[in-house]
This record gives sequence, structure tokens and C-alpha cells, in this order.
Amino acid sequence: MTTADDRAAEVVRNYDDLVPVLGFREYWYPVCLASEVSEKPLAMTIMGEPIAFLRRSGKVYALADECPHRGTRLSLGSCQFPGTNTITCAYHGWTFDVTNGRCVAALTAGPDSAVNNKVTVRTYPVTECQGIVWVWMGKRAPVAPEADIPELLRRATVVRVVQRYTYGNWRWHVENPGLGHALMLHRSSMYMRVRNYPGIARGIEPRLEETDCGPWLCEYCKEIQMAAEYPGLGVWPQPGSAWGLVREDMSPQFGVAAKVSMRLPGITRVTHFPINGALYYEWFVQIDADHYNYFQIACGFPKTALERAWFLWRYYTWGRPAGMIRFNRQDITMVGESERFAKRHQGRWNGPTRLYEPDRFQIAWRDYALRYARDFENGRTAQERVEAGRGR
Amino acid sequence: MTTADDRAAEVVRNYDDLVPVLGFREYWYPVCLASEVSEKPLAMTIMGEPIAFLRRSGKVYALADECPHRGTRLSLGSCQFPGTNTITCAYHGWTFDVTNGRCVAALTAGPDSAVNNKVTVRTYPVTECQGIVWVWMGKRAPVAPEADIPELLRRATVVRVVQRYTYGNWRWHVENPGLGHALMLHRSSMYMRVRNYPGIARGIEPRLEETDCGPWLCEYCKEIQMAAEYPGLGVWPQPGSAWGLVREDMSPQFGVAAKVSMRLPGITRVTHFPINGALYYEWFVQIDADHYNYFQIACGFPKTALERAWFLWRYYTWGRPAGMIRFNRQDITMVGESERFAKRHQGRWNGPTRLYEPDRFQIAWRDYALRYARDFENGRTAQERVEAGRGR
Amino acid sequence: MTTADDRAAEVVRNYDDLVPVLGFREYWYPVCLASEVSEKPLAMTIMGEPIAFLRRSGKVYALADECPHRGTRLSLGSCQFPGTNTITCAYHGWTFDVTNGRCVAALTAGPDSAVNNKVTVRTYPVTECQGIVWVWMGKRAPVAPEADIPELLRRATVVRVVQRYTYGNWRWHVENPGLGHALMLHRSSMYMRVRNYPGIARGIEPRLEETDCGPWLCEYCKEIQMAAEYPGLGVWPQPGSAWGLVREDMSPQFGVAAKVSMRLPGITRVTHFPINGALYYEWFVQIDADHYNYFQIACGFPKTALERAWFLWRYYTWGRPAGMIRFNRQDITMVGESERFAKRHQGRWNGPTRLYEPDRFQIAWRDYALRYARDFENGRTAQERVEAGRGR
Repeated sequence: MTTADDRAAEVVRNYDDLVPVLGFREYWYPVCLASEVSEKPLAMTIMGEPIAFLRRSGKVYALADECPHRGTRLSLGSCQFPGTNTITCAYHGWTFDVTNGRCVAALTAGPDSAVNNKVTVRTYPVTECQGIVWVWMGKRAPVAPEADIPELLRRATVVRVVQRYTYGNWRWHVENPGLGHALMLHRSSMYMRVRNYPGIARGIEPRLEETDCGPWLCEYCKEIQMAAEYPGLGVWPQPGSAWGLVREDMSPQFGVAAKVSMRLPGITRVTHFPINGALYYEWFVQIDADHYNYFQIACGFPKTALERAWFLWRYYTWGRPAGMIRFNRQDITMVGESERFAKRHQGRWNGPTRLYEPDRFQIAWRDYALRYARDFENGRTAQERVEAGRGR
Repeated sequence: MTTADDRAAEVVRNYDDLVPVLGFREYWYPVCLASEVSEKPLAMTIMGEPIAFLRRSGKVYALADECPHRGTRLSLGSCQFPGTNTITCAYHGWTFDVTNGRCVAALTAGPDSAVNNKVTVRTYPVTECQGIVWVWMGKRAPVAPEADIPELLRRATVVRVVQRYTYGNWRWHVENPGLGHALMLHRSSMYMRVRNYPGIARGIEPRLEETDCGPWLCEYCKEIQMAAEYPGLGVWPQPGSAWGLVREDMSPQFGVAAKVSMRLPGITRVTHFPINGALYYEWFVQIDADHYNYFQIACGFPKTALERAWFLWRYYTWGRPAGMIRFNRQDITMVGESERFAKRHQGRWNGPTRLYEPDRFQIAWRDYALRYARDFENGRTAQERVEAGRGR
Repeated sequence: MTTADDRAAEVVRNYDDLVPVLGFREYWYPVCLASEVSEKPLAMTIMGEPIAFLRRSGKVYALADECPHRGTRLSLGSCQFPGTNTITCAYHGWTFDVTNGRCVAALTAGPDSAVNNKVTVRTYPVTECQGIVWVWMGKRAPVAPEADIPELLRRATVVRVVQRYTYGNWRWHVENPGLGHALMLHRSSMYMRVRNYPGIARGIEPRLEETDCGPWLCEYCKEIQMAAEYPGLGVWPQPGSAWGLVREDMSPQFGVAAKVSMRLPGITRVTHFPINGALYYEWFVQIDADHYNYFQIACGFPKTALERAWFLWRYYTWGRPAGMIRFNRQDITMVGESERFAKRHQGRWNGPTRLYEPDRFQIAWRDYALRYARDFENGRTAQERVEAGRGR
């Protein structure tokens, strides 16, 4: 029999070994804006793999960005047969059907080359949704995109995206959200200073909730306290440390406006961010071992042109610059700190560090990730590998 | 009994392991222009070895650029005894005879220092030819420079050099030349656009030919085709993709003007490049694991002052800028691509990639290189090591 | 029985293995100027360890610059309780008593968090002396600072510091000083050209001397010679290679003004540098594997305001710019050379190189360092480890 505490200690202990540095593969990930992909290929690196994204007949395709002949990036190539679904490598003219990756002609060797229809380059399933291009990074057959793209995101009538090439690892960023950091780190941001902002959270309770598509891990909190007396130190937060200009704030009497949830493969969702009434999603799409694409999506649900204009006005004058750019830049700083720390400690993070009460949410995330992640290795899920390690 | 195809598969398979990353050592290599070397030492790195080149009494010498005392570069030193063949280390005054590398005095310890005539620094055989300094990088006694410097280069009446510090490896660049890449990669260069330029080469035949000094591996081609119909795709090259301003071109009716040959230690030769009547050589002299000196030599054979002026005018207004600089920059791009590919695939190139018909020339090069390279390891040539690996 | 020569060969052989790349730890090291440390933390890296230096109630404290919760640098934090000896992490509000490193509150979890008083961050003993902050990097209890900060430095009435972030390793710089390099390397510096400067040192004798606090290893020399005739080369130094403007010089008839001494953990001391009557110290405080803080200290002993003004005038117009900055930059160049050499030779320096007569001083240093260094490993000093390696 294992207690909850044993389980917590175990997931903390195993997390470093079981969670892949480049991210879980058997999922759909956002790549870029649909408007960024045209006939001319866009070269991206996702989870360490170079991929060329391009459009043919209006549809987006993705293929491994390495010619199987000499390794040259296919994204340096061009379409030599306008109107066809092909791309031709710039080096020796190997020409690929982008719909299935097959080499249909090695141009410089003539129509009868033995290579034709014998060589294939990997293609990646791609879809477009809400003006965003999504790619399936898994080795198995893709699930329906709806299983991975949240329903509320799909139903939003306004979608706005911020992307940042960021130093660090998705594992650090996915454990950043939650009340623990919000009450301290973001206290100094202009975005929070305008509010009467509490200082203390007690009784963090992670709960699995069916929200839109499948279960989300939501953070609940039994008690939010504005301030407390710390023996020998004084009252914290000190009165006057917030400007308190805004009334619909996070103070106990008004309720916690922003609520945080998480789900696989490492998505976070915040309600009423970056403006009231909005819904905010974050993906951390690993590029290489040291960098990820910090993909921030703000969703709005205006029903009329006037509501839409009002939403966009608040988004562009306040939510985007003060929230998604500056407030979230504080998170980026801390993810960079974690990365540098991990580098100094041979990539291990959990061994040398300790957790505290609000980390119940993060521990629940680790448990949830190890239990439910789709990724298989030797035919076992992460959870089954944990159990096998214990001799079960 | 092994067939030709078995042999081809074998040299492809063994090439990565047997061909040295820094180049074959038992050869003469071009270093720099003779005018770049003076009394003041020139510091170079060749095949990972720091070497100081300097002149004494008008003659060029080369010695290991590491003082045997503290490892300081001797090229930081100076000649403390004008008129002698010495260089003195800038750190403690150890003074070396550049003709044999012997430490003739440790100045700061006086004429009776025990170090005098007891310590030696490695020297490299050096020669000057056609305004170029050449160095022997081998561990064995040097062959005659004439064995490695092509006769036609030695007979040229005009020699012009372009040198470029280039990212990548000589192994990728040496396999770049040939019809396969020329018909696609260079099609977009201004240098080729002025010609009516064919698209397809069939029946590539590498032949060993006694040209000037020893055998060169020459690329022949049974059939050059202007264009072809590719089923389901269309005609390629599309009419009008070349400007066709020049008549003495590479089209079948005029013959292939530029013909490519190769020889050890990895030299390529192109006829009628960068201008008609010129002869063009390329050396790829590895500097460190990631960079090489791309050493391009254009030779002319004018007999009169007028012919010489005409040659130089065409060279400087067209051949050099449009050919050696811009046309060949396309090759540099592709060598960089190969290097990045190799880095992603643990330095292996042949495993993950496939070859096609025009690569017969490159396969022949690998066969030729493994068979004839002078380098010995454990008393065996590369070829003998291949055979030993098969149990013979 | 081992002879002196056997012993010399042995310390040369063992030095690479026994002397720590990041420096001996059980010592006090200079960190920065006292004026650089304020309430706001100063982030430093010393011997590979990130350390935050800060002032509370006027006193300097140092603590490991990694929050034990998430690894974030504490130096990004602030004092949330003015008047207390605390620093609060910017990420989640963990608050530490800087005097003992104890986490006294995890602010965002309230005064009753289980973390309070249960988690500790490492603190480093710190002291201020002569306007310089010193830190104890050892794992054992610190010795009295007076044991490591030379008495004459503590008694100086003027102390001036130059700090440089320098490429290389303390092991190369600590073996730089001495007559061997001075007579050659610095000959070309303006600082030396003004003197009639000898060329040859014979009979270098290192002697252990009780100078101010504990023994220093001092360099003596039986014979300083202005110049000599080198057979087949000529006279060196050549007459006229110095300007000879200054009479109180290093020539034999005036005595050697500047005398060099060394002591653990790798300090050098030079008399009458950078101006006559001054005393000069150098520490090489390793930052990471590739860089160290080159910490230069000039001491003066003026007794009156006039003497002080005269000392400072000479220091700022000549000693600092011509001596400590430019003259010593020649040493920095050579340390960089040694570092690049070591990198080419797998970090080994002594194997591939040879020593000569003036290196008796450097060999004596190695012997002294291995014998007397405080550092213990498996309960043994470096010297005991040498002997154990020989089967004693």
C-alpha cells in the first residue's frame, strides 16, 4: 500500500528520468500562424527535427527538411513544376510529392532514374485550425486534432498569438504556472500592481475536471489571504505595495479572477487572462535541447462587431503589452534561471531542490503526466515504466 | 568474387570510417600566397596543427607554432639576431633555427643553458611555386612537389588565387563537383543563366586518365540532354529558364565546355573555368574539424602581353566575380548544409543518405581515394584496411 | 633515497593531476571592492559556484546564489522586510536569513509553511579588509583572515586595485612570474624600455623566507648579466634595445629593484612595483574552467599627506597605466596562449613541454604547493597523495 505522500515522492523522484527533454511526441503541437506558410517553404525545427512547411493548392504540408540524397534542407528548394504538389531540392533536383514524401523524379538524371518512386522522405500530418498550423509529432497514427486542440479554443471568435524563441526547457515552464509563483514573481509587474493583490495561498487542491475536451488538471485553493504577520519579520505583503486602482481584482472579496489549469502534453490555460472575459493558452514547443517556442494564445468570444472591437481594443492596449508580453516575460526569466541551474547540476533538477505546499499542483501535474502521457517506450507508458522500476 | 556493384556498396560503406576528417596527410597542400609570408611570422592552422610560416634570407620556412617550453605560439616572436635563420619566442627567449627547428639558445639563461641544441621543434617542408606557398603535411619524407602540383598549373603563365575561410569539411566539398549538382544548383547562377544550359546527364562514366602528372579521375558523360518530359509533372527545364545570351555554351551541339576531374588528396580541376581557355583547380585544406581553407586557383596560358591583358580583363570583370566568387558560393552553401546534416547524424553521412546515377563519379572517387591514398595507418593503406576488415 | 632532481621530476609529473583546476579551496580569496557590495545583491561566480554578496546592517554576507526551491538566483531577489537580515527570492518568496542561510519564511505559503526553518542555503564566511571583500571558499572552518591576507597588505596606508575578467587558468598565471619571462617578455614594454635592462639570469635560487605572515617562496639569483655573446648568433640583448632613461633600474650595479615571491594558494608579490616603494600582490581567482578574476593590488606606505599625494600621482600617471595595465597585459596574453595550448593537448601542460634553468623557481613552487596546500582529499594532502601513489 502506498500513501499519497509516497506517491508524491515517487513522481518527484521519477520525473527527471521519464519526461522527455524534447517533449511528449504523440501529440498535436502548434507550429506557427497559417499566414506564415506559403508556397515558399518555411524552415522550422521542432523537437530537434528540421521540418519544411509549405503550401500546395492552398493546403499546408510538412516534410522532413533533409533531402535523402545529400542531407540538404529541402526548404532551400523550389517548385519546378507549377501547379503540382512537388518541391525540388536545390542541390541535385530530387523532386518530392509533398503529399506523401515520395521522390517522383531526380531531375538531373532524367525521367528514367532508378531513384524515382523508390525513395521517400518523412511527412508529418498537419492541420490548420483558428489561423494556426498544427503538426503531429508522433510516430503512431495521429489522433483527431479535436482531441488535442481544446474545444473552447476552437469555438473562440477571436484568436491572437504571441510567439517567442525562448531559452530553456518546456519542463521548467510547464511547472511555472500556479498561485505559488503568481503571488510573488508577478507582484512587481505593472499588470498586477493595479490590483489589490493577495499574498498567501493555503490549501492548494489540484482537481481533475472535465472542462472542454477531456480532463484538465485545475488548481483550486481553500484560502486566499491578503497578508499575514510573520514572527520576527513583520507583515507581508506590506500595505501600499500595490496601487489598487482596479476593483475587479484577485482579492478574496471579489474572488480569484484568473484560474489556472493544465493538461497534456504540457498546456496551461488561464481564465480571464490577459483581459477579463478572455481565455489564455500556452504551449511550450521544444525546438532543440536549449530552446523552445513559447506559444501564447489569447481567445475571445465576442458575439457582435461592437463586442469584438471592445475586446480587441482592451487586448492591444492592455492585455497584450502589459500581460502577455511584460508579465509573461517574468516567467521567461525564471525558466532561463531553471535551465542554467539544470546545466550546473547535470540536467537534474529535482534532486538538488525542495518543494513546498503550493507545489501540490506541480506534483499533481507530474503524477498526471506520468500516468496519462500517450508516449510509449518499449510498449509501456511512463506510468508502467515507473511501476516496472518498483518490481511490479 | 565481388561485382562492381558490391565494390561500390563497399566503398560507400567504408568511406566515412577510412577517410580522415582533417584530410590525407602525406601530400603537399597550398597554404597562402607567397606574398603573404615575410620575415614577420604568419600564423596558420592546417589540419588542426598550428604552424608559423616565415621568411629568412628570402626563403620560406614553416615550424610548429608552439614553443616546446610553455606552448606559446612562436609566431608571436621575432628575430633577435638580424641576418640569422632564427626566431626567438616572445615569452622566455628560446631561440630556434628555422631551417631545422633546433633550439640554438635560451637567451635569458645565457649561452651555456642546458637546453641549447637539446630541444627541437617540428619543421615542415615548404616550397614556393607559382606565387603560392606549399607545405608537406606528412609524417614520412616528402615526395617531390611536382608529384602533387599539377604540371599545367606549374606551366601556367598567369595564376590567380581566391581563398575563403569556409564552414564545413573537405569530404563534402570534394564530392560536390560533377554534372549532377551543376545541372541543378548552378542553374540559378548568373554565370549559367547566360548560357543555353542542358538539364539532364545520362551515363556518367568516370575514367582514370593520365593527364599531366599521374592519373586524374575524369567525368565523362554519354548523353547530355537539353530537356525531358517527366510523366505527370511536365517538361524540365522549362523553356526560358536560361537567358541564352552566350553561344559557346554547354549545350549538346557545342559540346561540354567545362569538364571536371579529380585527384588525390582531394583536388578538383575544371576546364574552361572561370573563363574559356582557363584551367581551374580547387583544394580544400582543412583548418580544424569545422572549417577549411577553400583554395581556388585560376590558371591562364597567354603567350603575349596582349593575350595576357585580354585574359586578365575577362578574369576580373567576369570570371572572378561571377564565377569563382558567386557561382562557387552556391557550393559553399551546400557544403555548409552537409556539415550541419553530419552534425545532426553523429558525423555519419553515408548511412542516412542515398546516392543516384550521376554519383557514379563520386563513388569512383571514393574507390580511387581508398585505393591510392598515400596515408598509412598501422602500416596499411586505406584499401588494405578495407580488405583486412573483410577477413582477407 | 630520492635526489633533488628526482623530486623535481616528480613534482613536475604530478602537478597536472594534483593541482585543482578551479584553485585550492581552503583559503581566503579576494572577491571585489567593498564599495561594490550594497543592499542590492552582487552576483559573482567563484570556483564554479554562484554566490550572492550583499550588505545587511552595513556588514557583508555571502550565500549560495541558488534558491533551494527552484534553483533561481537569490541575487534576483530583494529585501521584503527592511531592517531585517533577510533576502527574499523573486520567484516564490522563500525568505532567507543571510547570517546563517536559514529559510525563515516561504511567504506565499503563509507563516505556518512546513518549509520555514527546515531548509538552509549555504553561506560563505566573508570579511572586509583594506576596502576589499574576502571570501572563504573552503569546506572546513575558516582560518583567521590574517593567516591568508599578508601583513604588509594589511598595514598599507594606500591600497589600489585593478580587476580583470581574464581568459585562462590560474595555474598558468601563477607560474608566469620570475626572471625568466621578465627578461624577455617585458623587454618590449614601455615600462621596461626606460631602464637599462639586463638580459640573462644565472643560478636562480628559490628560498623559503619568513617575510610577513608565514613563509614566502622568494626568487634569488646568483648572477644577473647585462648581455652575452651567443656563438654563431651575436650579442644579446643588442645595445640600444633599451632607452635607458631611468637610473634606478634593474642593472647589476643598482641591484634588482623588483623581487618576486610566491605563496599559497597562488599569490605573487613583487617589490617596487608598479612604482618604487610600492608593494604589489596578485591573486588569480578562478571563475569557471576557462576564466579567472585577475586581481591586482598595489600597496603604498606613505606616512604624510604629501607622501600620499606623491605616491598617488606616480601611481596614476605611470605605475597603473604603464605597469599594472600594459606591462601586465603581456602576461595575460601569455596565459591565454597557455590555455589554448592546454586545450589542444587534453588539458595537459607538463607532458608536452620542457623546462629550463630559470624554471627552478616554478619547480620549487610546484613542490611547495603540493607539500603545503591545505586542501584535503580523502583525508590526505596533495603531498601525501603523491607519496601514496609511490607506494609509501
